Amino acid sequence: MSESVNRQILLVEKPTGKLGPEHFKLTQGAIPEPKDGEVLLKVRYISLDAANRAWMHGATYRAAVEANTVMAGGGIAEVVASKDPSLKSGDIVFGDTGWQDYAAVPAKHLGKMPKLEPMTHLLSVYGIAGLTAYFGLLDIGKPKAGETVVVSAAAGSVGSIVGQIAKIKGCRVVGIAGGKDKCDWLVNELGFDAAVDYKDGAVFKALRAAAPKGIDVYFDNVGGDILEACLALMNNRGRIACCGAISQYDGVPSATGPRGVPGLIVVKRLIMQGFIVMDYMDQRDQALKDLQSWVASGKLKVQEDVINGLENTPKALIGLLAGENRGKRMVKV
Amino acid sequence: MSESVNRQILLVEKPTGKLGPEHFKLTQGAIPEPKDGEVLLKVRYISLDAANRAWMHGATYRAAVEANTVMAGGGIAEVVASKDPSLKSGDIVFGDTGWQDYAAVPAKHLGKMPKLEPMTHLLSVYGIAGLTAYFGLLDIGKPKAGETVVVSAAAGSVGSIVGQIAKIKGCRVVGIAGGKDKCDWLVNELGFDAAVDYKDGAVFKALRAAAPKGIDVYFDNVGGDILEACLALMNNRGRIACCGAISQYDGVPSATGPRGVPGLIVVKRLIMQGFIVMDYMDQRDQALKDLQSWVASGKLKVQEDVINGLENTPKALIGLLAGENRGKRMVKV
Repeated sequence: MSESVNRQILLVEKPTGKLGPEHFKLTQGAIPEPKDGEVLLKVRYISLDAANRAWMHGATYRAAVEANTVMAGGGIAEVVASKDPSLKSGDIVFGDTGWQDYAAVPAKHLGKMPKLEPMTHLLSVYGIAGLTAYFGLLDIGKPKAGETVVVSAAAGSVGSIVGQIAKIKGCRVVGIAGGKDKCDWLVNELGFDAAVDYKDGAVFKALRAAAPKGIDVYFDNVGGDILEACLALMNNRGRIACCGAISQYDGVPSATGPRGVPGLIVVKRLIMQGFIVMDYMDQRDQALKDLQSWVASGKLKVQEDVINGLENTPKALIGLLAGENRGKRMVKV
Repeated sequence: MSESVNRQILLVEKPTGKLGPEHFKLTQGAIPEPKDGEVLLKVRYISLDAANRAWMHGATYRAAVEANTVMAGGGIAEVVASKDPSLKSGDIVFGDTGWQDYAAVPAKHLGKMPKLEPMTHLLSVYGIAGLTAYFGLLDIGKPKAGETVVVSAAAGSVGSIVGQIAKIKGCRVVGIAGGKDKCDWLVNELGFDAAVDYKDGAVFKALRAAAPKGIDVYFDNVGGDILEACLALMNNRGRIACCGAISQYDGVPSATGPRGVPGLIVVKRLIMQGFIVMDYMDQRDQALKDLQSWVASGKLKVQEDVINGLENTPKALIGLLAGENRGKRMVKV
């Protein structure tokens, strides 16, 4: 190894309000020695996700992150030393490496990745983002050709793929995003039928105009007021795929839920269903096959937002929570 | 016919707040003449349901009820004259007869009922209440033996049957009801494992104690705070059958929804699903077969709350909304 220092970013304090740079500290540690069953990883790309912020609130589908430890986060890494027969030097893996140059991680917690270029696609379209879009839309949303699909955080890593898959399936697709630039991009570059700028006020009216036949599938990345507006516009027997609640991650949790729950759910016979992509890992090969063929044919465009330098990871997450990214954001270590 | 007068109860004004006797008026009309395709009905029993109140808010799965018309409501009636080949004098039917002695109704809007005694069972266990409990619990809730099922409005027409079917299916069953008497009845007479009195404060704590392994299935008849408390106690992959929102029917609609939507739905991978029993009518025969065998074997106890006299129907509905009934409430005309 050419470097002997392990740069690490610690979460020094759990935020009680908005996340800021003051909650993180760049420090240096030793490069760890892998124990039996572990491998030593050189981290290549760190994934930035709204879920990073959610973990600071407490245990979710994983344990809460704790103050004064290396900030948790998924990443693509290369095996540089192995004490487990299942992985060898040079293998590429995905796992919770944390925000650091090097990590020693049990091999059983890692997923071996195919070697493909660009490697960044392993974090975007062929990673959690692409699989989340694929399974959430197709398995929970169950869109049928001709139906109207609405997706929020539509310019984000998951949303931009959800909308494109819905187009591939023959649906009318409406994206909700923040700002005219993102909305124009969704329609002009990604082929969405319409886009609603939630920063422009009057979301309900704009959404009703963009979905004149009502909403059959709503892929919810945000919760809050936008979920409430969509609930009111859902058609009978509509499906809501609950993927996240980014509007409620950064800051004090919302004191209330959306109006219309459960009233509209009853009257319209809606299904609201939460999911996490890990539950679908046994079906991953089929998903990757579909995603690869759509990318190869040009039907699915991959948008990535790569930021350079481990030291910029906190800023990259803070910006993601503020909605500044377009497509999948990651840090090149 | 021995009578020549048709007593009718009109909804004179749509309530903006709490429903009271002043919103109704007893009047007299002529006995209608059935047109071609219609039958003349003598109403025997009128069903009282929280849905009666919901219809006053606006269109749901049926058109809204309008001021200065006969109040809408389902009932069991006897055909006394027929201008449709599908029904004859003496047949017993279920349909939206309205709150009156006689109604002329298109035969195609009526369901022919078996002749069984007591006839009241056609409105309780073999009627909408029983079928709602059956399909909502089994098709939406999908309880497995050993799981914990919670039902709200548990002493009501639907809830009392939901809990008993869940017991038949081998579940731990917790009922939520108002008042110690109802709670004692659920446990001592109907065989629930535990009951929580929501009027006793601290619902969340009591519920947590009554469901120490968490909630796998919540059959929601009430919405509001109780739904919120249950959401927080749901186990991963739990199912919430959204049957109604009685807490939100009588008065100004709630300004907010339950906290935890969509956050807890995502993290716990919950399914919230609304349904209306009409969607299951093609499977009714199987349901009735099961229900009849459970009643015959004594596993399912039928509780009815029969009030005498058409003139008492408004009071009966107002009382139902205040939670004074135990089991299925109806009016004997």
